[in-house]
This record gives sequence, C-alpha cells and structure tokens, in this order.
Amino acid sequence: MTKPLAGVIMGSTSDWETMKEACAILDELQVPYEKKVVSAHRTPDLMFEYAQTAKSRGLEVIIAGAGGAAHLPGMVAAKTELPVIGVPVKSSNLNGLDSLLSIVQMPGGVPVATVAIGKAGAINAGLLAAQILGIKYPEIQERFMERRDATRQKVLEDSDLG
Amino acid sequence: MTKPLAGVIMGSTSDWETMKEACAILDELQVPYEKKVVSAHRTPDLMFEYAQTAKSRGLEVIIAGAGGAAHLPGMVAAKTELPVIGVPVKSSNLNGLDSLLSIVQMPGGVPVATVAIGKAGAINAGLLAAQILGIKYPEIQERFMERRDATRQKVLEDSDLG
Amino acid sequence: MTKPLAGVIMGSTSDWETMKEACAILDELQVPYEKKVVSAHRTPDLMFEYAQTAKSRGLEVIIAGAGGAAHLPGMVAAKTELPVIGVPVKSSNLNGLDSLLSIVQMPGGVPVATVAIGKAGAINAGLLAAQILGIKYPEIQERFMERRDATRQKVLEDSDLG
Amino acid sequence: MTKPLAGVIMGSTSDWETMKEACAILDELQVPYEKKVVSAHRTPDLMFEYAQTAKSRGLEVIIAGAGGAAHLPGMVAAKTELPVIGVPVKSSNLNGLDSLLSIVQMPGGVPVATVAIGKAGAINAGLLAAQILGIKYPEIQERFMERRDATRQKVLEDSDLG
Amino acid sequence: MTKPLAGVIMGSTSDWETMKEACAILDELQVPYEKKVVSAHRTPDLMFEYAQTAKSRGLEVIIAGAGGAAHLPGMVAAKTELPVIGVPVKSSNLNGLDSLLSIVQMPGGVPVATVAIGKAGAINAGLLAAQILGIKYPEIQERFMERRDATRQKVLEDSDLG
Amino acid sequence: MTKPLAGVIMGSTSDWETMKEACAILDELQVPYEKKVVSAHRTPDLMFEYAQTAKSRGLEVIIAGAGGAAHLPGMVAAKTELPVIGVPVKSSNLNGLDSLLSIVQMPGGVPVATVAIGKAGAINAGLLAAQILGIKYPEIQERFMERRDATRQKVLEDSDLG
Amino acid sequence: MTKPLAGVIMGSTSDWETMKEACAILDELQVPYEKKVVSAHRTPDLMFEYAQTAKSRGLEVIIAGAGGAAHLPGMVAAKTELPVIGVPVKSSNLNGLDSLLSIVQMPGGVPVATVAIGKAGAINAGLLAAQILGIKYPEIQERFMERRDATRQKVLEDSDLG
Amino acid sequence: MTKPLAGVIMGSTSDWETMKEACAILDELQVPYEKKVVSAHRTPDLMFEYAQTAKSRGLEVIIAGAGGAAHLPGMVAAKTELPVIGVPVKSSNLNGLDSLLSIVQMPGGVPVATVAIGKAGAINAGLLAAQILGIKYPEIQERFMERRDATRQKVLEDSDLG
Repeated sequence: MTKPLAGVIMGSTSDWETMKEACAILDELQVPYEKKVVSAHRTPDLMFEYAQTAKSRGLEVIIAGAGGAAHLPGMVAAKTELPVIGVPVKSSNLNGLDSLLSIVQMPGGVPVATVAIGKAGAINAGLLAAQILGIKYPEIQERFMERRDATRQKVLEDSDLG
Repeated sequence: MTKPLAGVIMGSTSDWETMKEACAILDELQVPYEKKVVSAHRTPDLMFEYAQTAKSRGLEVIIAGAGGAAHLPGMVAAKTELPVIGVPVKSSNLNGLDSLLSIVQMPGGVPVATVAIGKAGAINAGLLAAQILGIKYPEIQERFMERRDATRQKVLEDSDLG
Repeated sequence: MTKPLAGVIMGSTSDWETMKEACAILDELQVPYEKKVVSAHRTPDLMFEYAQTAKSRGLEVIIAGAGGAAHLPGMVAAKTELPVIGVPVKSSNLNGLDSLLSIVQMPGGVPVATVAIGKAGAINAGLLAAQILGIKYPEIQERFMERRDATRQKVLEDSDLG
Repeated sequence: MTKPLAGVIMGSTSDWETMKEACAILDELQVPYEKKVVSAHRTPDLMFEYAQTAKSRGLEVIIAGAGGAAHLPGMVAAKTELPVIGVPVKSSNLNGLDSLLSIVQMPGGVPVATVAIGKAGAINAGLLAAQILGIKYPEIQERFMERRDATRQKVLEDSDLG
Repeated sequence: MTKPLAGVIMGSTSDWETMKEACAILDELQVPYEKKVVSAHRTPDLMFEYAQTAKSRGLEVIIAGAGGAAHLPGMVAAKTELPVIGVPVKSSNLNGLDSLLSIVQMPGGVPVATVAIGKAGAINAGLLAAQILGIKYPEIQERFMERRDATRQKVLEDSDLG
Repeated sequence: MTKPLAGVIMGSTSDWETMKEACAILDELQVPYEKKVVSAHRTPDLMFEYAQTAKSRGLEVIIAGAGGAAHLPGMVAAKTELPVIGVPVKSSNLNGLDSLLSIVQMPGGVPVATVAIGKAGAINAGLLAAQILGIKYPEIQERFMERRDATRQKVLEDSDLG
Repeated sequence: MTKPLAGVIMGSTSDWETMKEACAILDELQVPYEKKVVSAHRTPDLMFEYAQTAKSRGLEVIIAGAGGAAHLPGMVAAKTELPVIGVPVKSSNLNGLDSLLSIVQMPGGVPVATVAIGKAGAINAGLLAAQILGIKYPEIQERFMERRDATRQKVLEDSDLG
Repeated sequence: MTKPLAGVIMGSTSDWETMKEACAILDELQVPYEKKVVSAHRTPDLMFEYAQTAKSRGLEVIIAGAGGAAHLPGMVAAKTELPVIGVPVKSSNLNGLDSLLSIVQMPGGVPVATVAIGKAGAINAGLLAAQILGIKYPEIQERFMERRDATRQKVLEDSDLG
C-alpha cells in the first residue's frame, strides 16, 4: 500500500460526519492519506506527538477539523513545519462562528489555512490538500483539474432551468 | 520569599498591558504569584511543561491571558488538574470577540473559567483567583471581603451626583 | 448525609435540562451538592438570601445557570465571597449569545467564572467546581484526574476511524 | 422644591457622561427628578432598597443606565412596580452590544423598556419618561409635544442643503 | 363595553402568533385594548392615521410588533405623543436580531420602549403597558402586583428540584 | 436649468458628510438631481409628501441615506413607485450594521436597493442611479461606461508596486 | 415570443428554490425574462460572457442570487453596464449573513442593488427589476402599482383580528 | 534574477499597507515573488488573465488580499489550479468581518486557504506560502524552520516579566 501523504485528523468522533467529505475527495483524487481522532484537549500529548512526527512519517500536508474552541488545527500547526488546513466544524450553539474564529484568527507566526464552516469546508480541505501536493506531484494536480473540468461540465449541462 | 500560589501567564509581551491588572489585584490581596510569557503557538513545549509541572511546583490556580485565536488557557487547562482562569485580551480587529469565543467555548471535559474581555477581565481574574484560593486560605478570603467592602463604601460615598 | 459543598442554582425549571449535566458530574465525582430554582427576576429576595447565606451554610462554590438577560450568576456573585461559576443557557432566539455576554462581561470587581454555552458548559461547570474544591480536598482532585484519564483512554481507544 | 417623579440611576460615575443627556431632557421638560449612582454589583443592597422604596417615595418612573453585563435595569425592574427604562451604555470593547442584550433580553414577567445604545438612548430615555408621565400629567405631555414641534421646525428650516 | 386604553398593532397577520401573548396579558390584567394589523410598508397611510388619531380616540399606550426591517414601532412613535412599546418579532433568517436593531436603535428625539425578541417580549409588552397605565390607574398597578406575587409564589413552590 | 431626475435625501444634516459622495458622482455623470434633508422620524409628513409627489415632480429614482434604525429608505419606498436606493450611514455605536439591517431586510412587497455602508455605499448609490437611468437615457449609460473605463485605466496604470 | 428584458441567474440549482420567487413576480408583472444557472466559481468564463453580452442581447436589468461567499452578483456587475440586483440566498451555517455581506459590501465603483436575505429578497428583486424597467416602460410601472394597490387592499381587508 | 514562485496580488493600492507584511516574509525566507494590484471589480479581465496564466508563467502559489466584498481570492481560485491564499484586509466599517466571510465561505469545489484578518494574516500568508512551497523545495522549508526556531528563542528570552 502507498504511504500516506496527507493526514486527516479531527477533535472527536462526532466530527467524522463532516470530515469524511475531505476523505472522499482524497479518495477520489487518489491522494494516499491516514485518518485519526486526535483531541487537543483530551489527548494533548498524542496531538503533540502526531504533529511533531508528521513530517518524518512522510506526511506532507495535514487537514485538521474541530468545533467550538477549536484548538486542534492551530496547535498542530505550532508543532510541525507542514502546511495545516483547518476545517471549522459547525458547532451546536453558535453555528460554527466560534469554530471559524478560533481557527482562522491565528497570531502572526503560525498560519492555519482555513476553509469554510462545515461540509463545504471539508470538501475544500480535501481539494486544497490536493492543490498543495499538486505543485510537487503533477499527477495529483492533473486529477484536480480533471475533477474541476468535470464539475464545470456538469454545471453547464444543468444550467438551463427549463 | 513566599512560594507562589498563582501563576499568571500570557501569550505575548503585548498582553502585559492587560494582564498587569490581574497582578495588581494579587499584590493588593497579598496572594503570592509568579508571572511569565508562555506562548501556545510559539513556545508550545514550554507551555506543556509549565502546565504539567504547575501543581508539583506548588501552584494552586493559573491565570492565562491571550488574544485572537487564544489557545493558551484551553491548552494549559488540558495539561493540569488546577483550575485555569482565562482572560480574553482585546484583539486589534474583532475587539476581543474572537478571543472570548476561543477561550470560553471549550468542549465538555476541559473547563476554562472565563472572565470579561480586557482590563476588567484581568482585574476579575485576580479576584477570582483570590476567591478560589480563599476557600482554602481564610486570610485571602478575608482580604477579598475587605477589598469588596472598601469598594462598596467608595461607591456609596460617590453615589451622589450633586 | 454529607453537607453540600456546592450549590447548583438556575433561573427557571426549563434550565434543568441543561443544568442536570452539572449535577451528573458532581454525582460522578462524589461532590456533595444541593440544587434549587432561584430566579433573579422573579424571586430576587430569595436569590439575595441564598447568596448571602451560602458560605455560612457550608457551601464553598456556587454554579448558576441562566439564559437571555442572564442576571443570576452576576447578582449572586455580588452577594457572596464564594467563587461563582456561570453557565450560559442556550436561549430560544439568539442561541445563547445573549446569555454568554450577560454573564461574562461583568465589570471589574465582581467576577463570574463563565463556561461554554449549553450542555458542554454545564458539564464543565461541574468539573470546574471539582477543580476548585480539589485544591482544598485532595480526594476530589484525585477523582477529577481519574475521570480525565479515563476520558483520555476512551478517546485513544476510539481514535482509529477504521 | 418639587418632589421627584423620575429617578435617574446609573451603575457607575463613568456612566454620567451618557446619562446626563437624560437629565438634560428632564430639565428641559420640567420633569422633577433625582439622580444617583447605584451599582447592581457593588452596592446590591442599596439597589434593592432603592427599587423597593421607589414608589413609596413618590417616584413614578425609573431610568437606569448601565454597560457591559448591565444588570441594573433588570434587577431594579424585578423589585418595583414602576415602569423601568433601560439605557445601554456603550461598553469599551463590544460597543454596547453586550449592554443592549443584557438589558433588553429580559424573560417574560419582568419588562425593561429599552432604548438605543449611548447618548441617543439617554435622550430618548428622558423623552420616554416624559411620555409615560404625560398620560397622567397633561402639562408634561404638552411640553413633550412642544419640544417635538420645535425639533420638527428646526429640521424643516435646515432641510435645504444649499 | 369599556373604551380601549391600549392599542396592539402588528405588521402582518403572521405576527399574531407572537403578539397574542401581549393580548393575553392585557386580558388577564383587565386592560381594555383594541388590536389590528397595520403595516408600515403596505398600508403606510393607515399607519399614519392610526398613530395620529390614537390619542384622540382615547388610547394611552401603543404596543407595536414587527419583524425584519421593523419600521412600524418607530414610525408610529414619530406620529403620536403616546408612549410606544416595540416588540421585535423573530425573523426567519436572522432570528430577530434585525428586528431588534431596527426597533431599538432610534435616533434621539423619538423613543421606542423596546422589549425582548419574540414571545417573551410580547408578554413583557403587555406587562409594561400595564405598568405605564398603572401610574395613572391604581387598579391596574394593583393587578400587575398581584400577578407578579402569584408568579413569585409559583416559582417558590416549584423551586425544589427533588 | 435641467429638471432633476434623481432625488437625494437623508435623515439628518450629519448624513451629508456621507451623502455628498453620491452627489459628487451625479455631478460627474451630469445627472440632474435635487438634495434635501427629510427625516422619517422628525418630519414624517414631509417624508410622505416627498415620496408621494416624487414621480409627478419628474423624479425617476430616489437615493435615501440614513443611520441607526434607518427607516427613511423603506418608508419612502412604501410611498412611491420609483426605485429607491438605500445608503446605510455608519452609526456611532454599531458601525452601521444596524443601519444596514434596518434598510436591507425589507419584507416582500417593498424593495429597497441597498448598497454598502458609508462612503463607498454613497458613491455606489450615485453610480447605481446612473445605471438605472441609463437604461432610459443612453447618454447617461455612456458616461457611466466612460467613467468605469477611466477607473480601470487608472488601476492598470497604478498596478505595478515597484 | 417577447425578447427578455431581465436576466435571472443564480450560482447553483439549489438556489432555484429561492430565486423562483423572483421569477413568479416577473411572470405576474409580465416582464419578459430568461433564467439560468451561472456559477461564479465553477463556470467563471460563462459568467463573464453572460455579463459582457447581456446588454447586446437586449437585457436591461440582471437579478443574481447566490449564497455563502456570494461572488456572482458583484462579478457580473463588474462586467456589465446594466443595473445588477443581488439576492443573498440563505446559507446553511450563517443564515445568509455571509451572503449578505459578500454581496452588499462592494467597493466604491461597482454597485450591486442588494435586497433582503432569502425568499422575501427574491420577491423584492422581481419587484425592483419591475420598478427599474418601469421608468422606461410605463405599462410595467402601471402593473407594479396595480399589484401594490391589490396587496394594500388585501392587508386592509385582513387587518381586523376578530 | 530568479523567476517568481509566488504571486502576491491585492485589490487596491490601499491594501499594500497590509500586504507588504506578506512580501517582507517572502523576502526574509528568500522566496522569489512578484507583486501587483489586480482588482476583481475594476480590472476583471486582468484578474482572469493573471489567474489563468499563473501556472504557465511559473508561479506555484498565489497570495491574494482584499477587503469588504472581497472577491479577488475566490475568483482567482476559480481560474487556476494553484493553491490560493486569501488575506482578509481590515475594512473601514465592519473591521474585516465582511472581508473574512467573503473569502472563507467558499462553496465546495473552489477552496481559498484563508488566514487571519489584517497584518497578522498577511504575515501568515507569507509563511503559509513558504510552507506550501517547502514540501517541494527543502531549502525553503529549512528557512521556515530556522525562522520559527529564532522566533521561539526570542519569546523564551523575553518571557521573564521581571
């Protein structure tokens, strides 16, 4: 089996419903990945170890989803040289606005590449990972473009409203 | 010198302007404390070590101030059994609303005792630390009550608007 | 029967659905507590009496939940020397943002230890009460740590997503 | 001297800058009033006494201004049968949005007649008090109408922009 | 039949679901009232006529409910000397935050006595109308106090959570 | 002199600082216009008369600017068949978010063509009026396009950052 | 068949549920129109071509609906001299507040005539298009006024609440 | 001279004050880049050409900054296979919240890697570009890590507050 290039992590099993969209994209674009629940607050040492060893284990990009006071993406970013993509999972009370601000408003020095709240964001996290890897692996970039062309074609076909 | 009971930490030297209000209260109520810049994002290992050793070093309560994607209070709380008080420092663009949500919206399992945004919050962090310590150390509780009575007296004296 | 150390109060019986999560934690950690509906607006005198006598009745920490213009935690805090933990109950129209701001934005002088909106906040209120009591009662701190370790273990066991 | 019909109270001397606008209106409309600093959080007993005795002292309407977790108007309303007008004073961090929500989002049973944030709100609190008193005292209603007509006249005169 | 003292108006028939709570309170406190759909945007002339003739028709207070760009309370207030109470009806997209701001943020000169969003606000509008009328009609004030005492008694009876 | 095609109105003389930007655009594009202070709340009858007679006086589009509970654009729209453009003037406390929501969230039936908050919005109100008139008066559309081309040219010239 | 005067476009087929309300109004007022799915992000070239050729194809006004980071109305406006009406479609997480701000906060130079979030906005987009066309085509203006009168009549008939 | 790997674009010259922070980081990490003003709304064709030719001109990542209805990053992302980093520039009225939502809330299919509002975001855009390029160019990754270590060292040295 191929060694994973992308790591998909999330703060809790309940985030899987959202984050599986990112995995579906990676599957579709044939980007090898691993997935795991890693909680910033409940398993902080595991999180640090995951982030610190990510590069040496061969990962080249990390997708991290979390909701509420969503510290996972930012803390992983603090412990790795790899680009980290943050997915704000919709929270039960504030609709993910808290997740979004907790992820995107990082201080200068430690970026998190933040995408939209919820499933659209998870889809885009998968695509952004592919774009990032695509500058090194032309075949991933190619598959990314094929998918975009197919999407465009589908929109064009459905664009007439009768 | 007395061993510190409270630890006052903040994410950056620029937070000192806010956090010194907490220290002023601790000084006033004669609560021994230590203070330090500990950044969740720029010095994550120091942060973990600080939190993990806090109890064994004799601390009994931690005050942590941070702004923006303010991860410091929540991450420290994930690594210590001590109560952690979080101060949302006013951020330059969103007025501390991002700091507040990042600190207060912790998932079930890891509480942060959050106070108001900015200087009023830092003052209250100092007072809350004294209240918490006060259930163990009656003399701190007493000084807390004396200060409150004095404040009340002052408001009463100034309450006539002429 | 053991004398209660924690008082759990709420503004209305409809808050019980949220606040019972705090009680479940206190039960689990064997923290003796009492619980009561005390409304800042509909039973203000009862509220003042409750707060004023809390310490002499043996309480050492108070958890207060309320929604909307949530005045209960702050007003109780104004009338007691004990640390007060505020739980913003989710409101029907503004999702608890009003509850959160009404509880957390206390003026310098009277702190409320605010936790997250809703059930996660109620759980954390129970845990924070245990942490606060834990600095005086080592067995509570120990049970707090055992619970956290168990939670961590469970997350680790469930962390593989297949 | 005439006995006051309106009571103007505020949570802190710093609110005077805003609340003096309400007093200026009452002066202008010759509504007798008293003014006082009464803090919900720092002088809770004074507040309760103030509210509870307001009617027997001859007051018929109360104007209460406060900022942040602005509990004063709602708590006074809980302790009096008189109509209470709440003025959300602009807060330093959240621009008075916290003050507004803390004052207006009262639970069913205890209304606060809320006006706009800041000075416009204080002016309107004075006018609203006059309108309320005006249904009992025709001369106050008359002066209210005269002032409104004068304002209208002035707007009409200045309406040409050259 | 008694001549109405209060006028209850709303921008659309769909607001009735909310505004009937205000009427229920007026019924309970035996405040004679009339009710009507008057739309600021769809029947502007009717609205102006309603407001302008309100006093001469014997009304002494007006309750106006509206949602979204809720102009009804403010425009009625611009055309009458009577106190106007505004109820922000919950809107379908922004949960009534738009209704609240459109009603409460009136410019200096034309106050609207704003209450909470939705049904709690409608209840409080009824109560506030009774409080306002109560300074002129002691029997209404008395019934207001009886209702409050009854509510208090009920909360006290239900305050034990078992 | 040419008869005005556009009417520029605003709720208060203090709005002129913002609304003069709309007039500057109309001057530049040679769209004849009139300008006036017309307050929804302080001069409601003038407002209704203005709106009701606008078409018969030859106007074909109206630009209305207002801040806070900004009722002017929506009320004018309720009284005229002409398209009404609403400019949310920046308010002192809520930065124009209240103005924006009060103007844009109109109920189905009475549209207001809303533009951005503040000066950018006023500029765009002038341009939008020109675009609207441009479908009837080709020379206005032409001048609109010339201005846009000139702007584009200027951006292109300045696009190199050295 | 009559050549379309209005173009109704939307970013995705899922926007049709909202945007069909605009079309229903155009049908009712007998404004000839075309409708199409044109995505700013998935079919950018089609969007540019649509906008650039709109005038030459005989369109005189464009209605564009989009949700989330709703770029369609603004980008179309950047490529046409015709007035563009933007409808913020309700988004799944932020209730259309993101759609609203993305559409309305256009920089000076390129206006979008923004209406309310969701179906009320779509209805008003249809009416606003008719008002704009109405200054050139008197029969459309007439039908607009007939519809408004009918609506008014209906509100008046239903205004008694029993 | 080295061929640029990164393109730094912004919607207006006034964004340079923010975006120069991104360029400073690229200079510091020796990432060759080009910079240009490209306006989505005022120079849409240039924008499309820029995005469409970016890859063939040798660019591997694009940083795009914009404020308000910030369409530049999303529209560029729609026209290129390269990863696009979006910087929400602080807007004059809504503090960049509009910029943030317009950039981050992209629909599934077209991601923008969004960073924090304002200068911290621009700094992080530069660092994120380096991290992305770093997975292909080890020397950039190395310089990124050296800079991070140096920052950490500096924080550690300054962490004592005296």
